[in-house]
Amino acid sequence: MKLAVLSIAASLSAVSATTYQRLGTCPTLGCVLPPDQSDFLPGQLFDLRVEVHAPVNGSEAAYNGKPDHHFKLTIAKDGGKPQDVAKFFAVQQPKLEQWQFKWYEDLFAEDTKTPSLVNVASNVYRKLALNEPGKYTVTLQYYNDKKTTAEWIVRPLAETQKAKNVIFFIGDGMTTNMITAARLLGHKSINGKYQTRMKMDEFPVVGHQMTHSIDSYITDSANSASALYSGHKSTVNAMGVHADSSPDKFDDPKVETIVEIFRRVRRGAWGAVSTAFLADATPIALTAHTRARSEYAPLIDQALNGLTNYTWTQHEGPDVYFGGGAEHFYPGKTSYEGRDYYAEFADRDYTVSLNKTALLAADPTKRALGVFCQGVMPVWLDRNIYPSNLKDFKNSPKGGKEPALDLPGLKDMTLKAVDVLHERGGNEGFFLMSEAASIDKQMHALDYDRALGDLLELDDTVRATVKKLDKMGILNETLIIVTADHGHGFDVWGSADTKYIAAQKDDRAKRNAIGVYEKSGLSHYTEEVPDVDYGTGPNFPVNWEPRFAIAAGPGAAPDRREDYRVHKAGPREAAVQVGGEYYVNPKDAPDGIVINGTLPTNEPQGVHSLTDVPLYAMGPCQETFGGTFNNVDIFYKIANCLGLARKNCHDPHHETKADERGAAY
Amino acid sequence: MKLAVLSIAASLSAVSATTYQRLGTCPTLGCVLPPDQSDFLPGQLFDLRVEVHAPVNGSEAAYNGKPDHHFKLTIAKDGGKPQDVAKFFAVQQPKLEQWQFKWYEDLFAEDTKTPSLVNVASNVYRKLALNEPGKYTVTLQYYNDKKTTAEWIVRPLAETQKAKNVIFFIGDGMTTNMITAARLLGHKSINGKYQTRMKMDEFPVVGHQMTHSIDSYITDSANSASALYSGHKSTVNAMGVHADSSPDKFDDPKVETIVEIFRRVRRGAWGAVSTAFLADATPIALTAHTRARSEYAPLIDQALNGLTNYTWTQHEGPDVYFGGGAEHFYPGKTSYEGRDYYAEFADRDYTVSLNKTALLAADPTKRALGVFCQGVMPVWLDRNIYPSNLKDFKNSPKGGKEPALDLPGLKDMTLKAVDVLHERGGNEGFFLMSEAASIDKQMHALDYDRALGDLLELDDTVRATVKKLDKMGILNETLIIVTADHGHGFDVWGSADTKYIAAQKDDRAKRNAIGVYEKSGLSHYTEEVPDVDYGTGPNFPVNWEPRFAIAAGPGAAPDRREDYRVHKAGPREAAVQVGGEYYVNPKDAPDGIVINGTLPTNEPQGVHSLTDVPLYAMGPCQETFGGTFNNVDIFYKIANCLGLARKNCHDPHHETKADERGAAY
Repeated sequence: MKLAVLSIAASLSAVSATTYQRLGTCPTLGCVLPPDQSDFLPGQLFDLRVEVHAPVNGSEAAYNGKPDHHFKLTIAKDGGKPQDVAKFFAVQQPKLEQWQFKWYEDLFAEDTKTPSLVNVASNVYRKLALNEPGKYTVTLQYYNDKKTTAEWIVRPLAETQKAKNVIFFIGDGMTTNMITAARLLGHKSINGKYQTRMKMDEFPVVGHQMTHSIDSYITDSANSASALYSGHKSTVNAMGVHADSSPDKFDDPKVETIVEIFRRVRRGAWGAVSTAFLADATPIALTAHTRARSEYAPLIDQALNGLTNYTWTQHEGPDVYFGGGAEHFYPGKTSYEGRDYYAEFADRDYTVSLNKTALLAADPTKRALGVFCQGVMPVWLDRNIYPSNLKDFKNSPKGGKEPALDLPGLKDMTLKAVDVLHERGGNEGFFLMSEAASIDKQMHALDYDRALGDLLELDDTVRATVKKLDKMGILNETLIIVTADHGHGFDVWGSADTKYIAAQKDDRAKRNAIGVYEKSGLSHYTEEVPDVDYGTGPNFPVNWEPRFAIAAGPGAAPDRREDYRVHKAGPREAAVQVGGEYYVNPKDAPDGIVINGTLPTNEPQGVHSLTDVPLYAMGPCQETFGGTFNNVDIFYKIANCLGLARKNCHDPHHETKADERGAAY
Repeated sequence: MKLAVLSIAASLSAVSATTYQRLGTCPTLGCVLPPDQSDFLPGQLFDLRVEVHAPVNGSEAAYNGKPDHHFKLTIAKDGGKPQDVAKFFAVQQPKLEQWQFKWYEDLFAEDTKTPSLVNVASNVYRKLALNEPGKYTVTLQYYNDKKTTAEWIVRPLAETQKAKNVIFFIGDGMTTNMITAARLLGHKSINGKYQTRMKMDEFPVVGHQMTHSIDSYITDSANSASALYSGHKSTVNAMGVHADSSPDKFDDPKVETIVEIFRRVRRGAWGAVSTAFLADATPIALTAHTRARSEYAPLIDQALNGLTNYTWTQHEGPDVYFGGGAEHFYPGKTSYEGRDYYAEFADRDYTVSLNKTALLAADPTKRALGVFCQGVMPVWLDRNIYPSNLKDFKNSPKGGKEPALDLPGLKDMTLKAVDVLHERGGNEGFFLMSEAASIDKQMHALDYDRALGDLLELDDTVRATVKKLDKMGILNETLIIVTADHGHGFDVWGSADTKYIAAQKDDRAKRNAIGVYEKSGLSHYTEEVPDVDYGTGPNFPVNWEPRFAIAAGPGAAPDRREDYRVHKAGPREAAVQVGGEYYVNPKDAPDGIVINGTLPTNEPQGVHSLTDVPLYAMGPCQETFGGTFNNVDIFYKIANCLGLARKNCHDPHHETKADERGAAY
């Protein structure tokens, strides 16, 4: 048997080059979406699309490029008799759709500009639900003798509410490695024992979640957020849908999200807080249904007004919506149809806050919109340690090039959100998602200090939130989760003598300033320095500019230069474009060590990584979050804790009227 | 307050450069070992050393280089009256010791060869114990008005035995990132759902442990193993002692280890299994007491014969000792005093197995030594996928240059160990440490495939062990822990089209073969290839040579070249020495992408990293391992589960006779 190995090299070139994918969830020519291995919450709304592919050219060319129009689709429950899908769900047979699309089979094909063309025939069934737990087999029959089968699991019912409220903190891109590094910067250790710890460290339950996308082992924040919110993994860039191959970015088959179900079943209040722009993946995926995360402006409309192109359940708009991204709100080229969303939210009886002062003063009994700047919100390090950098931003929430200076932090926004949601949720409770977005964004920028500063801000926010809930008397009825959506391959491997780096002329000599193992020594970020007091209180560094800094970074990066010093003058730009490729930014860390990249040369920043990410749980159902699980499982755990795993109801006001095992709504 | 920041740069150069440390646990001139913040198990044996330093030159020069000989040492319990230490422990006042040592204050001092000299006066009190839980304050008074205080905690009593047996798996250097990558290689995923999972994934409880050393935030395997086994963090390279500054590497103040306590209190059987050489840090730290892990030969003698230089408790030798490192056993230059340890173990009634055949046949009622090769044992990938590489090793367990070919794997050794320990432990139970050493060693070598192969072997071993314990009817009385001792900053960031890399001429063009995000696609390691069958069964890759390999690596590395293909011909040597510095090995991955290093140029390999590492627990007391904790806490959790947290007893056969709150034994 061992000898057989020798044939690999020869046989491999015939194997398909699936790193570029025709449609990731569809390795055959017949596609069922949601695909094989999908899970559903009982009663969860979804669309069902099938596609039949006829590749015109390329390695898969077949059927003269003519897709079968006479495919058949059946569904069977628990091994029972297959029924026609339209009959099973009591819907009309949809009208056949047709389109074509192109893709590259591999890098060689892309280099030679030889795409493969595929003709498609498709049907879509909209707004269905499966009410009965069990195993369903969906079978697409096409080209006479071809079959694509999808096994679906409808998870068990869990109708009892165990938590009244859920607060779901997401440290975007946050890994255990980063939490360890943030602890080193913000907490003092004496002889191996930390004198204070991260709030996350005090959470009783730790779990690990697998973040991979449905068709790629590295994910992005869109489809990972969608997995956390809907229980369905998707394709990179997609949210609230399974990506199809059609040209329309808004017709992909949808799945219902946690806030849509929470509104439909529980009528509680819900909100999103983020230090990103509000149209960014992690906040917007709560309400977005598209395979194109970059469609920011229409997605803000979806967040307020719900879906308008198809009948769908209505989340009725958030009770709280705090973050950046003013450019999608004030009227102009970057807002949806040029409309004024400040006015539209105000018309719907929202308080609208454009700075911290207004935020803190806003009436907590009203729905609240807070948009504090254009783009991503300036990070904790700039707001607290180097505030003069704020003046360099051209990010007024009203548009224009003035800087936004009266900025709330994640803690301010989250504590206010709790006030509003508690008021508005009343007996029905609330769901809040609070995102520390720039852990990810600054890791992309290879700005480790800014990333870790925002991680410490997240932890400080968690600490303050727990304290506030306790004071309000609602801590024990609130499930608190702190987790991430994916990782970056970052770690710390020693200390860097920044003075020695600067003093050496040669790149190789500079590298000898890195102290590994015992030469790492202790954290110098927690050593007091005379006359330095940032006023940032406990649990943050007392010195951001130690001579002995952490030597850290990712395995995956563009060309860059590292001096390991804090970037005092503002966020880092490690690589700059020269003729379509990225090279070391000559202005970044000029005394540092040049390190050539490991990424494609058109990649300006760091990228996401494979690693499972940690989850910390406290409160009702905390015990269900131990061990290792898939990111989609978090959706089912939360839904079960909220008692949302129940049969669908026609009437959105609470009663279950339908008892069909499957139905369209 | 913000303005004060501006003064940092100026004030910093005056701050001491503590990355090079005089004595890490002693920032002042008076040292107490065990130092401030130490924890103890009630009754745990330890030595107490104090040192008074008089720096002759350098930035700390003082007292004309003459250390105070008239220092005083007191101890007080729970804020009570301080007593003279000798009186408290009822021991004689020790004789004053004196020595001197040198150190470099920073890299500039090292470059200019200007060490700092320190004269030392010291006392040591040996074989003490604290029996009463509580807080102890040890105060060293010196130079008249100087004081160094150490606060010690003796943890609560826990005398009830909850687990009869403990199996403690250590994946050396294993992180969550690596477990995620190993899962990707060994387990097939369809549309985002793994069809099989790691055995670790099924463990009900996950925890995170902080691995930092006592005086450095990056640890090594010696002092991290020591922390896990003794509840005392130490200095890099030290095991079972707190490192002092004396010239003798074997006189440092000792702490009792888990197997010493388990033997003294419970009289159960204990064993160690490792794929490293048995004198390597992780196995040897169970019995070693030295600050120099490289003293391999005398440490093997300590493993069989215990301590001979000082009176100490006797572990009486392991019941099972399986691994590599024959060079410290057969008589010759590399064994202790040239002695024949095969004969010495045999004289003590051990079966001695030098190959897998003998191991499997060994009488399970007898104590068992198994030494299967010189050095580290060949890894799973070479034993199972590329076995012809084994012939290139010159590693016969009898000495000489023949290859060792009849090699057991970690699973063979561990299952045999369970047989022997169960027989020999009888009603008293057993403690087994089983180490997958080459996860670490191959990560150092930047050989990700070999590292992940050994991680999959560890998981396979855990799976088989759980199954065996279940069959033996002892699963529910056995606490099983799987964890690591430290990390490496490794992660996966995409897929590498190895064919495209090889086809490009230019280094930057080669980088474009890396697919990130959606271009990572799915794992090709789990795709069947015609005519390839390694016979390695489920839970391992079905193809180790996919065209689309993982693009992976650490942030910290020497110069190297990456083609991301498996190293078929044998373990990787990424960098080679040229005039005292390390450069890309021209023979390694000649078609690959050159990546310059981030480490000191005298560092040939990857290094350890900061990250917290995961812990998986199953069995009695599993619930005590959730959340985030220090590595030393694992010792206390295990000891509590075994009921070892009890007052010391003069008679090693079980009875507690001493009821003094502190005593010497």
